[in-house]
Amino acid sequence: MSSAPKNQPFSETPITVRSPELDSFGHVNHAVFLNYLEHGRFEALERAGLSWSGLDETGRSIFVVRIEVDYLEEVRRGQQLLVRTWAQSFRRTSMVLGQEIVRKEAPERVVVRAAVTAVWIGANRRPQRVPEEIQRGLLEDLSLKNL
Amino acid sequence: MSSAPKNQPFSETPITVRSPELDSFGHVNHAVFLNYLEHGRFEALERAGLSWSGLDETGRSIFVVRIEVDYLEEVRRGQQLLVRTWAQSFRRTSMVLGQEIVRKEAPERVVVRAAVTAVWIGANRRPQRVPEEIQRGLLEDLSLKNL
Amino acid sequence: MSSAPKNQPFSETPITVRSPELDSFGHVNHAVFLNYLEHGRFEALERAGLSWSGLDETGRSIFVVRIEVDYLEEVRRGQQLLVRTWAQSFRRTSMVLGQEIVRKEAPERVVVRAAVTAVWIGANRRPQRVPEEIQRGLLEDLSLKNL
Amino acid sequence: MSSAPKNQPFSETPITVRSPELDSFGHVNHAVFLNYLEHGRFEALERAGLSWSGLDETGRSIFVVRIEVDYLEEVRRGQQLLVRTWAQSFRRTSMVLGQEIVRKEAPERVVVRAAVTAVWIGANRRPQRVPEEIQRGLLEDLSLKNL
Repeated sequence: MSSAPKNQPFSETPITVRSPELDSFGHVNHAVFLNYLEHGRFEALERAGLSWSGLDETGRSIFVVRIEVDYLEEVRRGQQLLVRTWAQSFRRTSMVLGQEIVRKEAPERVVVRAAVTAVWIGANRRPQRVPEEIQRGLLEDLSLKNL
Repeated sequence: MSSAPKNQPFSETPITVRSPELDSFGHVNHAVFLNYLEHGRFEALERAGLSWSGLDETGRSIFVVRIEVDYLEEVRRGQQLLVRTWAQSFRRTSMVLGQEIVRKEAPERVVVRAAVTAVWIGANRRPQRVPEEIQRGLLEDLSLKNL
Repeated sequence: MSSAPKNQPFSETPITVRSPELDSFGHVNHAVFLNYLEHGRFEALERAGLSWSGLDETGRSIFVVRIEVDYLEEVRRGQQLLVRTWAQSFRRTSMVLGQEIVRKEAPERVVVRAAVTAVWIGANRRPQRVPEEIQRGLLEDLSLKNL
Repeated sequence: MSSAPKNQPFSETPITVRSPELDSFGHVNHAVFLNYLEHGRFEALERAGLSWSGLDETGRSIFVVRIEVDYLEEVRRGQQLLVRTWAQSFRRTSMVLGQEIVRKEAPERVVVRAAVTAVWIGANRRPQRVPEEIQRGLLEDLSLKNL
């Protein structure tokens, strides 16, 4: 599926696993990882120049239309993770963001890998062109803003 | 991706959208649908003959290893949905369940479509063979148990 | 704390426990009950005459400022519940709603009991008077609309 | 209700608000704060000497039986919070933990205040005595372990 970014900028967001995110099997529930991924995407888009309040005020939004996600390792109580997000491809009104979640202490161990397709929606509720400055921000500026 | 079941039994689980499941865009958050899908899968497996307490007691579990999900329509406050679950394919230690979420009032409108790959895990934490009776239950018995 | 409604109308909302709502102790996580309660309150307010889209459009909202909740019994996989909601008291800009969650099969068994204080907020982000028609709706009309 | 700890040790847990935790009003949903509080309590108990895996293995658990929570300020996207947890009182088989959530950048601003009553449950599913070493750990050792 999506492959980890090599020579490309990516955004990195730390995540602390919280106790109530464990399910009856004692590990992080698979749906919870989608929250971690969403949180990482919001931060990546912000670093790429997106203003969420600007988006809200103009009545625009970004809709997820497809997710492919592979669960490679279990995650348990008290672990520290990093969500990495990068631009994988663009079409006229949509983009595919690649994402992976790794262990902070052992970042070579990928626990979740995902490709998320999102469509930009205008105030008229119709797909609109991906803003050029965001596209450029995702492709060029992301890594400079990691801590 | 996965295609809706034609001449094959499927399990059908009603879902009522709850207010706190709406996100800041005013529609059901995309991660929440994974909870709906998981709930539908648990019910399907139970109807196929699986005893969850038996599973727990013997230290076995079922791990989701891959999800592909397409979001086709928005869902808003107060809507009634149906989650449909069916067996799509089997390998030795894993199975792919097809799922779709439709509107109860207009079941021809698919709002979410998914294919979920799950591995059966034994008490020794290693993959184990998919139980034959569950495989048969999924392929033969599901629909008889819908309300 | 709050006592169950006797001769007073209350709104009743069915809830099906979903598998991902169980935590690592195998029962419904205590935070999840707050989602059930919120869902019940939204439905009660709607039955009392509140239009949520009208509320959104006029920029008003209702903020929860205090919750007292007692957990009396565990709830496990696959159980059916009823959330009951009624008006407990009113002040100028706030109201206290009483709530209880009972087992559908044994409605005399209260599993959760709560008192929720909420403030009405105007478009100017300041507390505003509780609308008289909602107050009347909560006190008079609720039960007529239970199924 | 509960008052902030003065000369008493407390445990402090950082929380980053995640985008999917916002509700349709654009602020952190009130039920989500209970997850933050639970996460803070788990960490406090660990710092007080509790081994969660030891608890699980011996079939014991800790059940929340009552929560009182006051919501004092809204919390919005991207904010950093601190959850503080301290021992408020003990009875034979139960304890009350005081908790507050403050803004990291302005820790004098309390956004949520709570008192949580929890009962210790033995392997026989009956209340058991609060372990003395945990009681001592909560009263004496907590603050030494904040970062």
